[in-house]
Amino acid sequence: MPEFLELLPPGEALKVLLGALPHRKPPVEGLDIGAAVDRVIAQDIHSPDALPPFDRSTVDGYAVRAADTFGASETLPAYLRQVGEVPMGAKPEFDLLPGETGLIHTGGMLPAGADAVLMLENSQVARPGEIEVLRSVAQNENVLHAGEDVAVGELILAGGTRLRPAEIGGLSALGITRVDVACKPRVGILSSGDEVVPPDVRPQYGQIRDVNSYSLAALVTRRGGMPDMRGIIPDQAAAFETHLRKALQECDLVVMTAGSSASTRDLTAQTIQQMGAPGVLVHGVNVKPGKPTILGVCDGKPVIGLPGNPVSAMVIAGLFVSPVIDHLLGLQSNRPEATVSARLSINLASQAGREDFVPVRLVQTDQGMVADPIFYKSNLIFSLARADGLVHIPADATGLPVNASVDVRLI
Amino acid sequence: MPEFLELLPPGEALKVLLGALPHRKPPVEGLDIGAAVDRVIAQDIHSPDALPPFDRSTVDGYAVRAADTFGASETLPAYLRQVGEVPMGAKPEFDLLPGETGLIHTGGMLPAGADAVLMLENSQVARPGEIEVLRSVAQNENVLHAGEDVAVGELILAGGTRLRPAEIGGLSALGITRVDVACKPRVGILSSGDEVVPPDVRPQYGQIRDVNSYSLAALVTRRGGMPDMRGIIPDQAAAFETHLRKALQECDLVVMTAGSSASTRDLTAQTIQQMGAPGVLVHGVNVKPGKPTILGVCDGKPVIGLPGNPVSAMVIAGLFVSPVIDHLLGLQSNRPEATVSARLSINLASQAGREDFVPVRLVQTDQGMVADPIFYKSNLIFSLARADGLVHIPADATGLPVNASVDVRLI
Repeated sequence: MPEFLELLPPGEALKVLLGALPHRKPPVEGLDIGAAVDRVIAQDIHSPDALPPFDRSTVDGYAVRAADTFGASETLPAYLRQVGEVPMGAKPEFDLLPGETGLIHTGGMLPAGADAVLMLENSQVARPGEIEVLRSVAQNENVLHAGEDVAVGELILAGGTRLRPAEIGGLSALGITRVDVACKPRVGILSSGDEVVPPDVRPQYGQIRDVNSYSLAALVTRRGGMPDMRGIIPDQAAAFETHLRKALQECDLVVMTAGSSASTRDLTAQTIQQMGAPGVLVHGVNVKPGKPTILGVCDGKPVIGLPGNPVSAMVIAGLFVSPVIDHLLGLQSNRPEATVSARLSINLASQAGREDFVPVRLVQTDQGMVADPIFYKSNLIFSLARADGLVHIPADATGLPVNASVDVRLI
Repeated sequence: MPEFLELLPPGEALKVLLGALPHRKPPVEGLDIGAAVDRVIAQDIHSPDALPPFDRSTVDGYAVRAADTFGASETLPAYLRQVGEVPMGAKPEFDLLPGETGLIHTGGMLPAGADAVLMLENSQVARPGEIEVLRSVAQNENVLHAGEDVAVGELILAGGTRLRPAEIGGLSALGITRVDVACKPRVGILSSGDEVVPPDVRPQYGQIRDVNSYSLAALVTRRGGMPDMRGIIPDQAAAFETHLRKALQECDLVVMTAGSSASTRDLTAQTIQQMGAPGVLVHGVNVKPGKPTILGVCDGKPVIGLPGNPVSAMVIAGLFVSPVIDHLLGLQSNRPEATVSARLSINLASQAGREDFVPVRLVQTDQGMVADPIFYKSNLIFSLARADGLVHIPADATGLPVNASVDVRLI
């Protein structure tokens, strides 16, 4: 199962992969809103109540009938009789008749008859029980009407939205303290390579410790998945088959981090091909680093074969594993990706027709933020730890010149 | 305790607050690296081993003595005797003498005597046991030397670094499976306001459900703190004192989310002032929204009084609560903040001398990303849920014109 001759660009390859996945609703779990930040809500949520539930003052001042203040000014004040004070957290014990007013605090409930609030600084106490109105107020001025924020039955959150602090606060305001969210997809991580040993084992000559399973598990956790590290498989067809079959049964997505040699990569592709239809969809992507990437779907379950090079593995995980987790979570509205704007410190060459992702260090200078590319030999593990982010060179560019303005994706 | 007459800009106010905090090392807990992503490591970590631990091939090919290939070309190949194959994950069972070569895979260990690797595509089998070298290779070509990635004893992670997936992978490569990280600072959240009821209570007329405690707890969780929601306090001096004193004893940071009226704000400031030296440091910040912010330190513990308006509360929490959590975690190197570049859809006015943060919705258009400001009345709860991020208008600007290029901070 060699690499395909026509290498797809990464965006196309992702479309092929997502297009071959079933559109199932993810399984759902109920959570207290206090534990639900960054989780994806499973269904549309409509407001059970109006918000605010009553007409509220937005300032400290006097509740008035606006018509009573028309024409009032500092030189020609209007006079109103103060009939009470609105207590915080309770219904006013008085209604306003023409010529009357009542003291009200920010957030207080407007008494019946009132249709505006005069700010404290635009009033003056004339004598006990009477105030001077030094300014005219319009109807509805300084008032938040019942239902003005949210109406009863209004769609407040669409299914597939990731909950941020602002949404959590909104839910609590409506008394919604539990929500149904998508379960975290289980992401099986299979390592291979006869030279690879677990990190708690002292490597013998010729052996190295597993790197990609751990960095990948961290990436999965960050993205909202549940990593399931399934150990290191010997480089044999039978072992690959047994472990991949079990992983496909127990996980929602399987990621195979191959050893570095071409033979394990081929074994990965062959095994995926045998596990279920349609099998391998993409073998080789037109991207650097990460060309020897394998994307497949076996009977509805996605399988991703990552390159062995640690930098490639993380770049490819960002390009394919993260969006598949989003898909499995039922995420609908991905907000735009935030980046850091910087200027390139040197010329970067790139092959036309291929997309490149170059690790860079960000340096704050007097002339603004500078992106300084990190050059790394294949299989250097700490190259990414030394970087702040990645610069993307699009396929139609043959590189980027020094001082080019770039958007750095933080890693 | 009225607001100070001179309002500090938010950056200055933060400096005053952080400057008054003690520089204590945070308490530490040990964690498996699988659970440590986004945590802040407590001490410098030096490498116990060299990485890679032995000279490795970075390609599939033939291990050679470079001098044996000098001058070789397709028209005039050199001939080498193949004396073996390097197994993956084990020490080669042969040394290379002049005129000899051995098959090696990517990641394989170089045999003694070899100092370069000839790529497979630059070789040809001449007859069994002999290969043709079609290209000269330089010394060290396609070889990763022992210690080239990391030397023994090298500082690989400075204390105060937040662990990303790349760092987790690096640690696993070195066999470091447990790390000491800063404990999550406990952030006490005290709500007040006689009109405020918990979200699971049906509000009576005049009452509203608590919003800010929940959104704030979510923000604290996201930033790496441990929220501790301590309920809603009645608007009375004695209650404020009792609850704040207990919170200061049990928490590393206390945030008070006041009700919306000026009287609760004053009560908050008075109570902080009495709780320990130096007390209130900042009362009122030159920012919109969020002017009525209170910052204090009581006997080494930070206290932040947030405005009652839900939008203000979240803006101010981002400006002050988040950096204080970073401080308590001992975070040393804050990476630059990622933003979304966009163009403003309308003119935005702002008062010179004051910093503004305007909620915006991001809209992808044919002309690129557009930031569309959301106008909101005071105390509208869902304004932020409808926004993607905030646009910052600096103090020296009197606004931003339509089409201005802005960096949107996602919320």
